[in-house]
Amino acid sequence: MSLLTVGTVAFDAIETPFGKTDKIVGGAATYIAWSASYFSKQVNIVSVIGDDFDMNELDLLKNTDAKSKSRGKIDTQGVEVKKGEKSFFWSGKYHLDMNSRDTLITDLNVLADFNPIIPNEYKASDILLLGNIDPALQLKVIDQIPVRPKLVVMDTMNFWMDIAWDNLMKVIAKIDVLAINDAEARQLSKEYSLVKAAKKILTMGPEFLIIKKGEHGALLFHENNVFFAPALPLEDVFDPTGAGDTFAGGFCGFLDKTRDISFENMKRAIIYGSAMASFCVEKFGTERLKNLTHKEIEDRVREFIDLVQFDIEIAD
Amino acid sequence: MSLLTVGTVAFDAIETPFGKTDKIVGGAATYIAWSASYFSKQVNIVSVIGDDFDMNELDLLKNTDAKSKSRGKIDTQGVEVKKGEKSFFWSGKYHLDMNSRDTLITDLNVLADFNPIIPNEYKASDILLLGNIDPALQLKVIDQIPVRPKLVVMDTMNFWMDIAWDNLMKVIAKIDVLAINDAEARQLSKEYSLVKAAKKILTMGPEFLIIKKGEHGALLFHENNVFFAPALPLEDVFDPTGAGDTFAGGFCGFLDKTRDISFENMKRAIIYGSAMASFCVEKFGTERLKNLTHKEIEDRVREFIDLVQFDIEIAD
Repeated sequence: MSLLTVGTVAFDAIETPFGKTDKIVGGAATYIAWSASYFSKQVNIVSVIGDDFDMNELDLLKNTDAKSKSRGKIDTQGVEVKKGEKSFFWSGKYHLDMNSRDTLITDLNVLADFNPIIPNEYKASDILLLGNIDPALQLKVIDQIPVRPKLVVMDTMNFWMDIAWDNLMKVIAKIDVLAINDAEARQLSKEYSLVKAAKKILTMGPEFLIIKKGEHGALLFHENNVFFAPALPLEDVFDPTGAGDTFAGGFCGFLDKTRDISFENMKRAIIYGSAMASFCVEKFGTERLKNLTHKEIEDRVREFIDLVQFDIEIAD
Repeated sequence: MSLLTVGTVAFDAIETPFGKTDKIVGGAATYIAWSASYFSKQVNIVSVIGDDFDMNELDLLKNTDAKSKSRGKIDTQGVEVKKGEKSFFWSGKYHLDMNSRDTLITDLNVLADFNPIIPNEYKASDILLLGNIDPALQLKVIDQIPVRPKLVVMDTMNFWMDIAWDNLMKVIAKIDVLAINDAEARQLSKEYSLVKAAKKILTMGPEFLIIKKGEHGALLFHENNVFFAPALPLEDVFDPTGAGDTFAGGFCGFLDKTRDISFENMKRAIIYGSAMASFCVEKFGTERLKNLTHKEIEDRVREFIDLVQFDIEIAD
């Protein structure tokens, strides 16, 4: 009942049509941890930050379980703090459609020579979620874990397809679930049809492929099966930053909690992940993910059920 | 158990990444009629063509009921043939993503002074589906029908929002169901969020709003309810022309057959409409819609059920 994730813990500065932020705490592992803490008993983070980081935010992460008995614990001993260095910083500006954005600044800082070290206490984690970082580092993480976790999930992006193809292929061959967006699935497979793309990607290693389509939902492919989960139509999408990571955190957290990695249960996990993502976008950064109640999450899941429920009886 | 539709019967020349056609028979009313004939007992078409039209194709439309006892009859007495004039012609070229296209040629020909006359035999049709034509003509159609049909459904497009706003508003005030795409919903409501757009549009007249998102599915809004139907992920989309009309034909045909215009039944109708659209795109033009079996349609609907089915139990 524990989840290990490796990814960025960082500063973001975000501009959307609805407003802009100064430097706020972001990073894939941050979103993943907040989201998963509603499901997993224990979330272990491996990352790197500079000593410019907002340590109060790190304390908040470490104290999720103090807030509510039903929240898991987030362990941050694997977050290396580099003295005299600066944390990874990303700044972006979203277009009106909220589906596309311009990156304004990417300061790698501590990330430039990140060397992930997995603490011994983390090595028996049940699920490993490889956040979107250099595939060479993802490989280093896998190599440090003596007994393969029950499930290895990987997030990546087009950037690594462009510059680190060979290492990317090596990681993909070792994982169970790959989560990428539709454009990335096309780039990875060199197929335009997502059905054809999925077939091809499922021969590269993973048994499950999640294709994320943002406001258009997500597809789960496994063998000859396909499942589609919509995104919830929202009155306002305030800030999409971290939605994909929040989805992945909820997805893995739910699988960890329920200890069931069947296709049927992955469908449920996708709904829970989508519900978590629908909260994420309602406020800037991780704000909305910090103090949710299980009642709010269940109510949101019920909205997904209502959204797609229909009743057709076909005579056999 | 009859459906009346007013729309184009026309020639199309289509180019996609997979091939191109010479002039083939298309037009909204053609797709609507083929699709609805699998559900409605009687489909009545009002349109206009020139004497250059392929009359064999018109005969095919008129003989659907001879092919199969379970197919409805298509009545084409309302299709005016203008001697010495040419049929409406549209030519377009699809981009690789199949979601966008360039219009190469639009020759209005007979459509330029189309004056729709509703035959008396058509006037008691149960459902009226106003295909995408000039709102002034849609108003003329409504005005010719003495007793309001049980349901009036309207398709329209951004073009009419640009050049015929006032008449468009007059039609929208008189209908029950409006079917438009996401960009059009945004243009019509001046709202970016589709949820906000839907709320606004539902104050303009219709009780139901369908927002079509192509390969991303369709949303149905009614009062405070929303239903989402995915599009089926297909190996190959060969030609998207007419998919929206095929959807509308299947949607209206199903409602006509089942004589139930509740929200619950409209959800089913959207699934059947989406199933019909998924056939339409598999071949050029109307080819795939001519000789379907009910077994094929039911199997396709079952694929939609499997695609979105999940099983989450939430304690109350």
